[in-house]
Amino acid sequence: MLNELVISGVKMFKPSGEVETANIFISGDKISKITQGEVKGSNVIDGRGKFATPGLINAHTHASMTLLRSYSDDKALMDWLQKDIWPIEDKMTRKDIYCGAKLAAVEMIRGGTTAFADMYGPCMEEVAKVVDESGMRGSLSQGLISFADGEKKLAANVELYKNFHGAADGRITIMLAPHAIYTCPPDYLKKVVAAAQKLGAEIHMHMNETKTEIEDCLKNYGKRPFEVVAETGLLDCGMLAAHCVWLSDSEIDIIKAKKIRVAHNPGSNMKLASGIAPVTKLLAENVTVALGTDGASSNNNLDMLEEIRLAALLAKVDTLNPLAVPAAQALQMATQFGAEALGLQNIGRLEEGYKADIVLWNMQGVDWQPNYNPVSLLVYSANSSAADTVIVDGKILMENRELKTLDEEKIIAEFTACADRLTKN
Amino acid sequence: MLNELVISGVKMFKPSGEVETANIFISGDKISKITQGEVKGSNVIDGRGKFATPGLINAHTHASMTLLRSYSDDKALMDWLQKDIWPIEDKMTRKDIYCGAKLAAVEMIRGGTTAFADMYGPCMEEVAKVVDESGMRGSLSQGLISFADGEKKLAANVELYKNFHGAADGRITIMLAPHAIYTCPPDYLKKVVAAAQKLGAEIHMHMNETKTEIEDCLKNYGKRPFEVVAETGLLDCGMLAAHCVWLSDSEIDIIKAKKIRVAHNPGSNMKLASGIAPVTKLLAENVTVALGTDGASSNNNLDMLEEIRLAALLAKVDTLNPLAVPAAQALQMATQFGAEALGLQNIGRLEEGYKADIVLWNMQGVDWQPNYNPVSLLVYSANSSAADTVIVDGKILMENRELKTLDEEKIIAEFTACADRLTKN
Repeated sequence: MLNELVISGVKMFKPSGEVETANIFISGDKISKITQGEVKGSNVIDGRGKFATPGLINAHTHASMTLLRSYSDDKALMDWLQKDIWPIEDKMTRKDIYCGAKLAAVEMIRGGTTAFADMYGPCMEEVAKVVDESGMRGSLSQGLISFADGEKKLAANVELYKNFHGAADGRITIMLAPHAIYTCPPDYLKKVVAAAQKLGAEIHMHMNETKTEIEDCLKNYGKRPFEVVAETGLLDCGMLAAHCVWLSDSEIDIIKAKKIRVAHNPGSNMKLASGIAPVTKLLAENVTVALGTDGASSNNNLDMLEEIRLAALLAKVDTLNPLAVPAAQALQMATQFGAEALGLQNIGRLEEGYKADIVLWNMQGVDWQPNYNPVSLLVYSANSSAADTVIVDGKILMENRELKTLDEEKIIAEFTACADRLTKN
Repeated sequence: MLNELVISGVKMFKPSGEVETANIFISGDKISKITQGEVKGSNVIDGRGKFATPGLINAHTHASMTLLRSYSDDKALMDWLQKDIWPIEDKMTRKDIYCGAKLAAVEMIRGGTTAFADMYGPCMEEVAKVVDESGMRGSLSQGLISFADGEKKLAANVELYKNFHGAADGRITIMLAPHAIYTCPPDYLKKVVAAAQKLGAEIHMHMNETKTEIEDCLKNYGKRPFEVVAETGLLDCGMLAAHCVWLSDSEIDIIKAKKIRVAHNPGSNMKLASGIAPVTKLLAENVTVALGTDGASSNNNLDMLEEIRLAALLAKVDTLNPLAVPAAQALQMATQFGAEALGLQNIGRLEEGYKADIVLWNMQGVDWQPNYNPVSLLVYSANSSAADTVIVDGKILMENRELKTLDEEKIIAEFTACADRLTKN
């Protein structure tokens, strides 16, 4: 007998971007049907006064970097990385990776996020453990840097794939993650391609994040990053490309031709002063543009609702066009486009046959009044504390803001001990 | 005997931007002293685990526009104004103005805002009533448009000044508010100047918000808005200028010379695609740049923490400089610079002799972990639901998120009735 659950009389975000009042029937891990009219029964969540959306999908993050939140801000990029971030990361243990990701899971569930694409490491099996325990979905990968034990790391990422791809009832998937063009020269990328082809694995990579990256790439290779990477065969593996801030028209053509999925990180790109990604242009070309928070040390949170809002606002002011990235499109970027970006099937839409990954937003707060348009309210007015109930694979991870799979108090205590140890000389 | 209160052992945002742990003693409406060490007594708020900042100051809003939140979004500016906003505003009654502003007061207090500069009308005495009842501070003004009963409106704004300037123990102040250069030609502005001089009143005005406004002004007067307005004498009255997005260097010189205070509205400027104000340039010239939300129909909330974050992020990406508007400066813009912008004395700093307008932020949430830097956490990570306790003039308006002066449930019910009536044909 499958686990059955109904969310009754809820305003629902349809895949089209419209809103209708409906009952969402969940059977096992799937949405089994969507109906109108009254529903009675025992396993019913009263959806009145709530807004149902697909679970939010964080298409680019480094979960365990929560450990470095507020440790170093308002610095020049290289000062920040070399003096503050990397020395601490060098000290991180297996336990730190676990505790950092576990706090991230609490934060993400509390903010309505149900799936995330994580690039970090070593010890990504610890993040897999967190995904398993929390009930979330994770597309995990180990960040690969050629000069720092490049071969060993690639082997670890391959091992991760073999051990965890499809694990936890399919909630865990694995990608290979060459970090970036400036840390992975073409010869190394070709090794990644060979490994990816053998496994059938897809790629998660930072692409075209800063102006300096482009300039250095032109200096080193006489070509732009997407052009260099294309020649290695990496783009034919299927790629989730994070950032894509500085793109030439010919690179946009490559992105289209190779069906690259883009993870746009407006908060991180603004805070690190990386630049503004040409999102409206990409969307107009039917490129899949998803949204990500990036790591908590450059954001400084894992709040996808904030990214949704920033994506809508930044596109408008960048193009001086108030019609750019309207609310419904911004929300689609964080849901159905997010699922596409992570390569997940039947996820990211409230539709019959899709996985039951659902967030119920509480519309009682004063910032939801008056309620002419729940999409507009969620995207432009509410904050993430309105996430009330979170369901993944038909299982409730949070109900009335109470976590069901994770012990928040204990997680914060263990996390704080890790952070304290890491930042004491 | 004065009302005495102590906040003990609290991390405190100092006017300098630094943080220290201290006890804040409140006597009557003022901060009487700030000490270190242990404190015992009966009227003590335990400040451990809290972060104390001055109350946030919303330097430009239209409070009653909460009634239009989510009614019309993602539209071109003139479509939005002419087809959707103005027709509803024309129907607003005295009661609507009151109920809209009252909901705004709930929202602002819940988000840690203690003072606001409001430009709206008619019936601004209803907003004054809300300020009085809520315990907040308000710098109120009636928006003046020459062609729509310009003389009558100016007379009403003058009347408002006479009846309310300094009312509610000084919590209410009044300004005169010619709406903008494109709704108030120079001859009309001169009448406003005459009235302002007679009263000693200051001015609140929209300035240089859109590119079209500049182009039209150049076409009509052969000069830019600040140049035209300067010639009327208006800038010598003391001005709070909202937006200031499109400024020439010579206009920045005028702003400096006339000590104009700027209200920067990043959220509204992004959503309406108005443009990016040259905030770093203004700050470098020691211009007082405060922050405002603008009305809830173009933001779509009254969340000052969001404006603080946007001010910091937008300045960085606009200048491609990650050092632009660091966290502490963004917080100063919303506190001490906000008080200067509204012309308020001894407000906006946690300092002996200053008014006891204080927010305690709860640092227990997962988005506050680890806690290396409360300023950075507040500005870059937390959301406004962390506002725990709000004090104005030494009186508690919210404690542990419970409102003390306003009945939220009743306010929402009355507000909803107004909104429903307004938007039914």
